[in-house]
Amino acid sequence: MSGKIRIGVLGASGYTGADLVRLALNHPRMEITALTANTHAGKAMAEVFPHLGFVELPRLTTIEEADWDRVDAVFCGLPHGTTQEITRKVLAEHPRVKFIDMSADFRLRDPETYKTWYGHEHMALDLQAEAVYGLTEHYRTAIRDARLVACPGCYPTATLMSLLPLAAGGLIDVSDIVIDAKSGVSGAGRSLKQNLLFTEAGEGLSPYSVGKHRHAPEIEQEISKASGEQVIVNFTPHLIPMSRGELCTSYVRLTGSTTADDLRAALGEAYRDEAFVHVAPPGVLPQTQNVRGSNHCQIGVVADRIPGRAIVISVIDNLVKGSAGQAVQNFNLMFDLEETTGLTQQALFP
Amino acid sequence: MSGKIRIGVLGASGYTGADLVRLALNHPRMEITALTANTHAGKAMAEVFPHLGFVELPRLTTIEEADWDRVDAVFCGLPHGTTQEITRKVLAEHPRVKFIDMSADFRLRDPETYKTWYGHEHMALDLQAEAVYGLTEHYRTAIRDARLVACPGCYPTATLMSLLPLAAGGLIDVSDIVIDAKSGVSGAGRSLKQNLLFTEAGEGLSPYSVGKHRHAPEIEQEISKASGEQVIVNFTPHLIPMSRGELCTSYVRLTGSTTADDLRAALGEAYRDEAFVHVAPPGVLPQTQNVRGSNHCQIGVVADRIPGRAIVISVIDNLVKGSAGQAVQNFNLMFDLEETTGLTQQALFP
Amino acid sequence: MSGKIRIGVLGASGYTGADLVRLALNHPRMEITALTANTHAGKAMAEVFPHLGFVELPRLTTIEEADWDRVDAVFCGLPHGTTQEITRKVLAEHPRVKFIDMSADFRLRDPETYKTWYGHEHMALDLQAEAVYGLTEHYRTAIRDARLVACPGCYPTATLMSLLPLAAGGLIDVSDIVIDAKSGVSGAGRSLKQNLLFTEAGEGLSPYSVGKHRHAPEIEQEISKASGEQVIVNFTPHLIPMSRGELCTSYVRLTGSTTADDLRAALGEAYRDEAFVHVAPPGVLPQTQNVRGSNHCQIGVVADRIPGRAIVISVIDNLVKGSAGQAVQNFNLMFDLEETTGLTQQALFP
Amino acid sequence: MSGKIRIGVLGASGYTGADLVRLALNHPRMEITALTANTHAGKAMAEVFPHLGFVELPRLTTIEEADWDRVDAVFCGLPHGTTQEITRKVLAEHPRVKFIDMSADFRLRDPETYKTWYGHEHMALDLQAEAVYGLTEHYRTAIRDARLVACPGCYPTATLMSLLPLAAGGLIDVSDIVIDAKSGVSGAGRSLKQNLLFTEAGEGLSPYSVGKHRHAPEIEQEISKASGEQVIVNFTPHLIPMSRGELCTSYVRLTGSTTADDLRAALGEAYRDEAFVHVAPPGVLPQTQNVRGSNHCQIGVVADRIPGRAIVISVIDNLVKGSAGQAVQNFNLMFDLEETTGLTQQALFP
Repeated sequence: MSGKIRIGVLGASGYTGADLVRLALNHPRMEITALTANTHAGKAMAEVFPHLGFVELPRLTTIEEADWDRVDAVFCGLPHGTTQEITRKVLAEHPRVKFIDMSADFRLRDPETYKTWYGHEHMALDLQAEAVYGLTEHYRTAIRDARLVACPGCYPTATLMSLLPLAAGGLIDVSDIVIDAKSGVSGAGRSLKQNLLFTEAGEGLSPYSVGKHRHAPEIEQEISKASGEQVIVNFTPHLIPMSRGELCTSYVRLTGSTTADDLRAALGEAYRDEAFVHVAPPGVLPQTQNVRGSNHCQIGVVADRIPGRAIVISVIDNLVKGSAGQAVQNFNLMFDLEETTGLTQQALFP
Repeated sequence: MSGKIRIGVLGASGYTGADLVRLALNHPRMEITALTANTHAGKAMAEVFPHLGFVELPRLTTIEEADWDRVDAVFCGLPHGTTQEITRKVLAEHPRVKFIDMSADFRLRDPETYKTWYGHEHMALDLQAEAVYGLTEHYRTAIRDARLVACPGCYPTATLMSLLPLAAGGLIDVSDIVIDAKSGVSGAGRSLKQNLLFTEAGEGLSPYSVGKHRHAPEIEQEISKASGEQVIVNFTPHLIPMSRGELCTSYVRLTGSTTADDLRAALGEAYRDEAFVHVAPPGVLPQTQNVRGSNHCQIGVVADRIPGRAIVISVIDNLVKGSAGQAVQNFNLMFDLEETTGLTQQALFP
Repeated sequence: MSGKIRIGVLGASGYTGADLVRLALNHPRMEITALTANTHAGKAMAEVFPHLGFVELPRLTTIEEADWDRVDAVFCGLPHGTTQEITRKVLAEHPRVKFIDMSADFRLRDPETYKTWYGHEHMALDLQAEAVYGLTEHYRTAIRDARLVACPGCYPTATLMSLLPLAAGGLIDVSDIVIDAKSGVSGAGRSLKQNLLFTEAGEGLSPYSVGKHRHAPEIEQEISKASGEQVIVNFTPHLIPMSRGELCTSYVRLTGSTTADDLRAALGEAYRDEAFVHVAPPGVLPQTQNVRGSNHCQIGVVADRIPGRAIVISVIDNLVKGSAGQAVQNFNLMFDLEETTGLTQQALFP
Repeated sequence: MSGKIRIGVLGASGYTGADLVRLALNHPRMEITALTANTHAGKAMAEVFPHLGFVELPRLTTIEEADWDRVDAVFCGLPHGTTQEITRKVLAEHPRVKFIDMSADFRLRDPETYKTWYGHEHMALDLQAEAVYGLTEHYRTAIRDARLVACPGCYPTATLMSLLPLAAGGLIDVSDIVIDAKSGVSGAGRSLKQNLLFTEAGEGLSPYSVGKHRHAPEIEQEISKASGEQVIVNFTPHLIPMSRGELCTSYVRLTGSTTADDLRAALGEAYRDEAFVHVAPPGVLPQTQNVRGSNHCQIGVVADRIPGRAIVISVIDNLVKGSAGQAVQNFNLMFDLEETTGLTQQALFP
């Protein structure tokens, strides 16, 4: 197949949707045929996102108005909770469509966990059972054949990329993981909340959702699976006065005589052939500036001064590898394209 | 010709050089074969710019060590004053090389003006005479055939793009132009100056070089040429607490019965077929967020409440359309490529 | 009188109100006895502004619940339009109360102008006639005896402080004034608007309300009065990615053989004995960093390269000298206190 | 004693020195009689810090030129390593002078530890033995009688304030403490380093000095003393794109059946009568915005989802409670003044 693959973006008036459009416009095989945003239906994209006003794009419509016959793949950037029924409807009526969900709706495999953290029953359990967790480097084979991919949250992406190989390899004590997470403000979306105003978030630093952030069960699900143990992690997010970027500092206890160098070697081995995941050499520390606007993830390991402990640091751009970029990476797999297609842009720095 | 065109970047440890590398990596016809940075010679690019550490790049060398036989085009991002002799040497020894200068060395056509503003005699007057001013949309034909292109400064690019058609069309009184210019901090380069520290430039706003910025004579040269009058402009730059982006607010007096709508129409006509220059519809104001990381220039016109006056606003990314991007655009012309090649990325927002 | 003067703050949940509280807490003669915020009535101030949670403060109430018998002076930080009737009521029922209005409701002396710019008839014309314009350094005598003071807008404060002495002295051509104004985001208040989000306003620069900002008629009113001519100015505001601070760059044409040095001398003379207004020596440019958090205003003058023109730059902290600080300065005059009482804090830098 | 106490500031061209001057200007009992800055000797303070140009201040001199006969107390903001011999000289020649050191030179009581971390022998061991650690709330009695006070580093202040009562009370396992620390850029001082440029530090987040920051041994010294055990902590600092503010997130393991509520209660008890240390109620999270520019420290405690663990968060302004403000607080004790004198300013927000 060499023609264009037609894509629709649900929730195109949010940051995740906009970044998907940005990437799609640079993707040689994508053609954007549908953009939905219920509260902005009828508007041109330029009215909602002026930075996308220099290219031709379909007008925003409601979900109902979208012409699914002209869509081969759907990227969904709707708020969690609204996605389940829409997904069901789209997939029921258009079984050939591939659905790449950037919302939280299909990430948690255990319905009870979902209910506990999201406060209501899951409304599409059959699809949940079918959904493949879209952490590309770790679910590549399943993603290739999937019809419904649940892209991970931004924090889980950054965290799991650095911890999964260590948990799977038995190199760290998974019962003692502390994840101090820091995110730019775009992680909170484009909603009008007081704490997201420039005047409130600027020149300041705030922890939030401490002990109750919904990305915790997602991280635990995957580390539990990798390690074979039922894991609870400490996950503590902080809001940083920058627009993009995410850095997770994980504090881990090493098993047996494992050293920090062993961790670095294991990560290097795990990601040796990866285009987007990079393990920093000893002495080099990741920083979000390195990945801004790109699909890269960078991981560094430092020995703790406390014997038997190490510090694992990972960075991503929360809107790219943490959302729209990873979605495109999964799309490439699902449509049998080179995995890096449309994602070769390096970071924008400064 | 369909193979790769080999490029060298002089001054690759500065922001302009780095952004050129970023764009080159995304350009389907460029191959980077030389990167020079005298004070960092011997280092890997990743040591100087960690965000470029995820791709293979030549090691940094001195200018002397660069292998010009393997270079078809040179992009020069050296500080002004150092470029003239290097250009002469490179072009003398390698006459087939095309030289795209992003420094200030060949922008001013009048040697006296150069001497007045830069404090020394020009050291390559013959090349100065040969150099084509690289404001792409206005010198396209000459650029195509040029061996040496002097890319405009960032402020002149933003300003001239909005004012040249108006001056050329006799729509504004060129003896009464006030340009209030605002730039992100990267416009000052990567040099270690106290006023560029985060703690000094952050959360604050500073005018600088008022009445004596070296981009003033460059703007005057071009407006004089377009209007046929000898022009002095008011040009007042301000440092804004952001990394990238430039906005010039020009206050103009209209000739005869010209209206703001006439200005907008003239600009719309001038740039109707341009891929990178966009005239905003009435009521829409340009903002730097719209062009961050892209090669776009956006222009807006508003009628002043003072009868017979108008406000013309233009924005660019100072490192892209204001430097490396425009350089690539010129390169495309010089090598007979589609002018937008490698420059189709939309803005990174947020 | 040496006891405490009891103050009430209307609109204490906005930035202006909060900064008034901050200053009042440091004022040796003020005691805060009432804080109102209708939508937050019943809450502790710490819930609305956590940074004010380390001191004892009255609980927020509705305006109706406020005990005016325990209030000697009212500072009003309500949105414009709502203040007129409240002021009338408070002053009618409590004639001994002094009313210091930080809203826009009593700034414009001409009812027609008010109606044109605010879209409705003024609802307290008698009080409007009584109100004194609170630009302290220029209305000091009247303020001392006033019962109702209308504190100027932030932009008018910065602009008029630099231009009034020049207009009054006939040193500039008041028919040709261009004011390019730049403000931090707090100037827009604490309202939930998309363009004020960190992700939207950060790392970017936006002009706004070009040709239609409500501070224009206020500036015109005062320059007209000072010069004796009916004046229209160009006033063009821009939103800057910082929380506090305002810088106005005014482009003026000099009369007769006046020079930029003459302007500087006239300003120096006008403000020679002022504690809060400072004229920079030649070669020194004001910047907002110099005044952040303080009640200072700094003014600089630079000769334009265009003969017969000059550039006048002024900076203030929009929430202090541009609002709450000037209000306190007026309060000091109205209660016969040393004018600098409670306002001696220098800028917070960095 | 009711007259002015004459103070000298060594290193007045650094941020710590400047903030000391800012606070001193607002202190009713301080008179600044000497300001030194060797590389800027002869200049007015306004040339070095324009924001301090609106008040009268002594001209900068070299240390040698300072007139110690006119100084009662010295605040020293010199870089570490240079302070020891200057302190010795000043105290030897002017034994009545009180010396409040904001540098790192006298913080570590163990000469071996000092040598290990600072790379050279301590040059004033007798004074080291005499110096009192200036963590005010925990060394109040000794500070009152001290001649030489070594003010803590900013990170140790934020961390110890939250952890010392817990360690002393045996409520946490001091062998398992992880401190994830985040600081604004002013923590790195005013030195010209590339990573401190606006363009490098802005819109990004960088860990630094991981596993080797010199504040680690200082924290360990005090927690060891409080707990009676020899402690090593994990201390991992990150650079945040803001100018001021510091937040330390400490991850602790509880002893026995201790709960997070017990920690909060113990902290509340420890700081019940303190003017500057505040324990947040359950559900309230500290943020640096609450303390910007003030001498406050705010502490919050959250139960971890991992049983038997808790998260303790503390914030300060690194230049105030973390340096100059705490120095003034100590000065107040040493000169028998009310401890809050000159320090009653609440945070500057927004």
